[in-house]
Amino acid sequence: MSVKNTVAILGAGRIARVHAESLNRYAQNVTVKYIIDPYMDDKMRKWAETINISYAENDSARMFADREVDSIFICSPTPTHCDYILKACESGKNVYCEKPLDSDISRIYKAMEVVEKSGIKFLMGFMRRFDTSQRKMKDIIASGKVGAPQIIKLCSRDPALPSYGYIKTSGGIYFDSMIHDFDLARYFSDSEVVEVYATGKALIDSQVGELGDVDTAAALLKFESGAIGLIDLSRQSNCGYDQRTEVHASKGFVQVGNVPESSVIVNNEHGVTHDRPVYFFLERYEQAFVNAQRTFFDIVNKDKEPPVTMYDGLQAVRIAKAARTSYLENRPVKLSEIE
Amino acid sequence: MSVKNTVAILGAGRIARVHAESLNRYAQNVTVKYIIDPYMDDKMRKWAETINISYAENDSARMFADREVDSIFICSPTPTHCDYILKACESGKNVYCEKPLDSDISRIYKAMEVVEKSGIKFLMGFMRRFDTSQRKMKDIIASGKVGAPQIIKLCSRDPALPSYGYIKTSGGIYFDSMIHDFDLARYFSDSEVVEVYATGKALIDSQVGELGDVDTAAALLKFESGAIGLIDLSRQSNCGYDQRTEVHASKGFVQVGNVPESSVIVNNEHGVTHDRPVYFFLERYEQAFVNAQRTFFDIVNKDKEPPVTMYDGLQAVRIAKAARTSYLENRPVKLSEIE
Amino acid sequence: MSVKNTVAILGAGRIARVHAESLNRYAQNVTVKYIIDPYMDDKMRKWAETINISYAENDSARMFADREVDSIFICSPTPTHCDYILKACESGKNVYCEKPLDSDISRIYKAMEVVEKSGIKFLMGFMRRFDTSQRKMKDIIASGKVGAPQIIKLCSRDPALPSYGYIKTSGGIYFDSMIHDFDLARYFSDSEVVEVYATGKALIDSQVGELGDVDTAAALLKFESGAIGLIDLSRQSNCGYDQRTEVHASKGFVQVGNVPESSVIVNNEHGVTHDRPVYFFLERYEQAFVNAQRTFFDIVNKDKEPPVTMYDGLQAVRIAKAARTSYLENRPVKLSEIE
Amino acid sequence: MSVKNTVAILGAGRIARVHAESLNRYAQNVTVKYIIDPYMDDKMRKWAETINISYAENDSARMFADREVDSIFICSPTPTHCDYILKACESGKNVYCEKPLDSDISRIYKAMEVVEKSGIKFLMGFMRRFDTSQRKMKDIIASGKVGAPQIIKLCSRDPALPSYGYIKTSGGIYFDSMIHDFDLARYFSDSEVVEVYATGKALIDSQVGELGDVDTAAALLKFESGAIGLIDLSRQSNCGYDQRTEVHASKGFVQVGNVPESSVIVNNEHGVTHDRPVYFFLERYEQAFVNAQRTFFDIVNKDKEPPVTMYDGLQAVRIAKAARTSYLENRPVKLSEIE
Repeated sequence: MSVKNTVAILGAGRIARVHAESLNRYAQNVTVKYIIDPYMDDKMRKWAETINISYAENDSARMFADREVDSIFICSPTPTHCDYILKACESGKNVYCEKPLDSDISRIYKAMEVVEKSGIKFLMGFMRRFDTSQRKMKDIIASGKVGAPQIIKLCSRDPALPSYGYIKTSGGIYFDSMIHDFDLARYFSDSEVVEVYATGKALIDSQVGELGDVDTAAALLKFESGAIGLIDLSRQSNCGYDQRTEVHASKGFVQVGNVPESSVIVNNEHGVTHDRPVYFFLERYEQAFVNAQRTFFDIVNKDKEPPVTMYDGLQAVRIAKAARTSYLENRPVKLSEIE
Repeated sequence: MSVKNTVAILGAGRIARVHAESLNRYAQNVTVKYIIDPYMDDKMRKWAETINISYAENDSARMFADREVDSIFICSPTPTHCDYILKACESGKNVYCEKPLDSDISRIYKAMEVVEKSGIKFLMGFMRRFDTSQRKMKDIIASGKVGAPQIIKLCSRDPALPSYGYIKTSGGIYFDSMIHDFDLARYFSDSEVVEVYATGKALIDSQVGELGDVDTAAALLKFESGAIGLIDLSRQSNCGYDQRTEVHASKGFVQVGNVPESSVIVNNEHGVTHDRPVYFFLERYEQAFVNAQRTFFDIVNKDKEPPVTMYDGLQAVRIAKAARTSYLENRPVKLSEIE
Repeated sequence: MSVKNTVAILGAGRIARVHAESLNRYAQNVTVKYIIDPYMDDKMRKWAETINISYAENDSARMFADREVDSIFICSPTPTHCDYILKACESGKNVYCEKPLDSDISRIYKAMEVVEKSGIKFLMGFMRRFDTSQRKMKDIIASGKVGAPQIIKLCSRDPALPSYGYIKTSGGIYFDSMIHDFDLARYFSDSEVVEVYATGKALIDSQVGELGDVDTAAALLKFESGAIGLIDLSRQSNCGYDQRTEVHASKGFVQVGNVPESSVIVNNEHGVTHDRPVYFFLERYEQAFVNAQRTFFDIVNKDKEPPVTMYDGLQAVRIAKAARTSYLENRPVKLSEIE
Repeated sequence: MSVKNTVAILGAGRIARVHAESLNRYAQNVTVKYIIDPYMDDKMRKWAETINISYAENDSARMFADREVDSIFICSPTPTHCDYILKACESGKNVYCEKPLDSDISRIYKAMEVVEKSGIKFLMGFMRRFDTSQRKMKDIIASGKVGAPQIIKLCSRDPALPSYGYIKTSGGIYFDSMIHDFDLARYFSDSEVVEVYATGKALIDSQVGELGDVDTAAALLKFESGAIGLIDLSRQSNCGYDQRTEVHASKGFVQVGNVPESSVIVNNEHGVTHDRPVYFFLERYEQAFVNAQRTFFDIVNKDKEPPVTMYDGLQAVRIAKAARTSYLENRPVKLSEIE
């Protein structure tokens, strides 16, 4: 079996660097040959050198023409995703795609068709699904031990507000952030969302509101199975990355708790103090990114089935769009409205 | 100071017995002189004897005429509450009223007026507010230590489905059960609910649906302050009384966790197993009932301000009605619609 | 069946008042007729009245002659215990005896003989054995689920140093305090202690050392079964009543954790803070005292077997004496040396 | 600054492989050039290739002569340690030494002298000191926040009995395993051990006893400061790697808890089950080994002070010898007896 582990990374922002460094450190026999970003600069080039990336370029043409490159990791801005997927199909390269799949649903449908015909391998990079704890919880639910899911609860709190620049281009909290929760809710419920009611407010910083977004949000989902989903989300917890999950089922419930920075506990007159949750998703999901990458190379080299598909990417986008509409129009929105 | 601690209990169902037994066991210098229920039977009379209640009757006339009785505990079916309150005003008796305040809002408004004029003391018996943990959480929030509330999350799971008979006359899950959560949400947010979106399903037992009710429900609340409330509720947890509360505020968050049956922890190849939550509200709120009763006698005898008023009772009923309407019409319902 | 529930309490110190108030509040159909203390004063008499004790006296003669009294609760200073037990035998009264059984082993042997012949009922009041959690742990061990005990670990930390007066007459930390742990260690191991090595220091307050005692102590026990016991103890935790238990057995281990004042948890930049343990043994073991009393009346009235016997009282005293000797002579001391 | 990061590993057993793989995966710019073991075989050579070690040899002569090698990691059998240290001094190579420092105290004293004169850098590899949680606990104690240490409690339970072969050459449980706890006890108490009382039994497997060792052990330490240490240890927990630490100090206490395999919690009729502790020291201390190696290269290249010295290695060996003597002679043994 020939091993196909030469990759290019599209984009050079935060998530691109996370993938590049993780591949460099943990992936056995993987070569990151290219990193491509239209705003590639010297600082980025130097960093690329330190982790042995041969080509740091601002155009993808040479890379797509390079037959040594087996796979691309799409970490570029959302509206570019489907274009890159189409180019990957043309040049026969496999795709690991960061969320969201794309901002435009018609583009997604088109890309899904082309990918299917092309025979390339595709993994939708919802990394939370690759987290040891979330996976263990899914396995427990799938085993039937706790019965059928009735209520799925997800809570997600970033440690601190991102920059206004980030917020401006993020696509809004439902599309940028809650999309992870929409995907996890589908994963745990094993059922499709049929309706969404969402709300939100700029409670942390009124500027966020002026930018047309909210910093605090909640959504209520209805699933085909009858199950109910509740999601709440904040851009600023002030106490690390608060990310917990609960699935209430007919025989009990399962939770994924926060991950503390250490296992130290201080007992004094103030109480019994456990350590804070780890700071953010980089710490919380460091291993999940490694697991997702490993899964990807198993799909490429060992013909494994992808556990997260383009269809999963599509559905999460549809739910996000329904949530945004619900928030704007203050009414429950059916998923069938989003095509 | 003359002590006014002779009481009558109206109703002889579960909650009436809880109050009678709790008063008998824990309240110092309190005499329960009457228990009144139109369906009073021999079995109930015998039980009343064992806890030294002098009169177990099926009519309240003699009791209301008895000038020795200082206070009544209203534990009868909901639609009778305001009538009893009016009679208490006439006869100058103080009132401890079980939730809900009444099923009819116009009756409530009327009763509020009469009570105000009468000068009697009134305590709305939302016992969860008297729970040590819930109160401690409220104190922490009120102290400002964690900042302004942004998201209030309440979850409530009874251990097992009640009888169909109970469900039939309960007024529905929002009115019978979620009303506690509506009250706590107001308590913790320190703000009024302006809009409710609610949903529900009969996921545990389809018979519940045939009776016009649901056994699994959720609601999303919007507060005047901008805060968001999320409530989820089930009639059957299969793992004891799961009742947890979270308030996310600008500087951190506070939780009230479940109360375990014991502090035993078993460590073996299956994991680290803590004991189950206590079985139901009787165990979980045993001390809260005692605290509420003590507060009531302090209001009566020491002229303390009631921490839970008729207005609190009214607002909870209005939110419950809005939630029921929202569920039936699948749309967000403004509280201003409910008059 | 005639019910024998008229009792006298010997002693009027802290533990005597705990029993009197607990009997008054929780025991059904029990009458505390006498409280007896050579230093009985007006303040104590008034208190006795508030809980309906008819006779508060400084001599026990009338009480022992009173045929209405079925049982005595011995809560007087330790050296008086066996004398009272002998008098109880003479007058045919049952005995609930506080720990330690007595300070003199030959007196204990004598009393055991007389009690056996007399036919009176006797319960040794090691209240920790009646705690819900400790009992649950014992049941789990007895069930065989975790296998044979190998290591028993007990830790006990009072919240704050007692008065020097208390320390002076306490008999020393091993005899006054660690005796509870010796008893629990026998209870959990289901085996007899054969050897003790003990140490201790006045680390909290050097005055304690000048009074011939220590405030911080540890002991290592060897059991007949081969199991090993470790006990550590402090007079001042500064963080409530820290009292935890672990039994490591061949298939896993079981713990009894601390009991928090509430189930509130605060999450902020400092960490995740659970509430403190309850303050002291009165709070921690309130229900255990009630359970012990109920067990006693079941022994008296329903002919139940006492779960804690004079022999248990004797063995705990012997281990405490061995520990004291070990501490003084800095050598392991065999239990067979203590007769 | 020239970077001195070419290393040789002495020994090719489990701990040698742990170091080699950890250096290969996590250490930036470090080259493992040699691995040396008298029993070097083909299988080991192949493994060495996969992680890019150039020379896998059964003799150390060439390596010690190779001036490119800056440092050696001593992971060979204990009695060889001091010989290798002396050779390192001769050839000017720095030393990372696995525990125990050596089995012979006179050899240790000699080696300490030579190392001092030689000017090489030395790090004693007690990896637990480099664990994030243990370090955080040490920092909290050192900060004075919880006051002066009074009782130090360490518990250590391997998941399953090692092979008889391992036990035979291990030097016994005190020397092989409890030595880690002796070192941590010194670390946390910031005081020297003056006396040890130790005991042990073959409770898990009588064969262990026939091999002259025990599988279950406990020790009681007395420190110069007056603090007391309690250690308990088992070769077989049946529930993962149970390794917890407590330091009780004058104002409260600090704990290091177990590290669970995941943050999943299952709630059902059996209770609330958290995930098991990670299986063994490899999982628990994976990051600690990385931290220790990083510290070593900082000592070598940046002239940092070693946080764990030969003297720390010596003291742990002396305490282990005292413990073994105590166990054999059943008496407290002063550290001054061990020279």
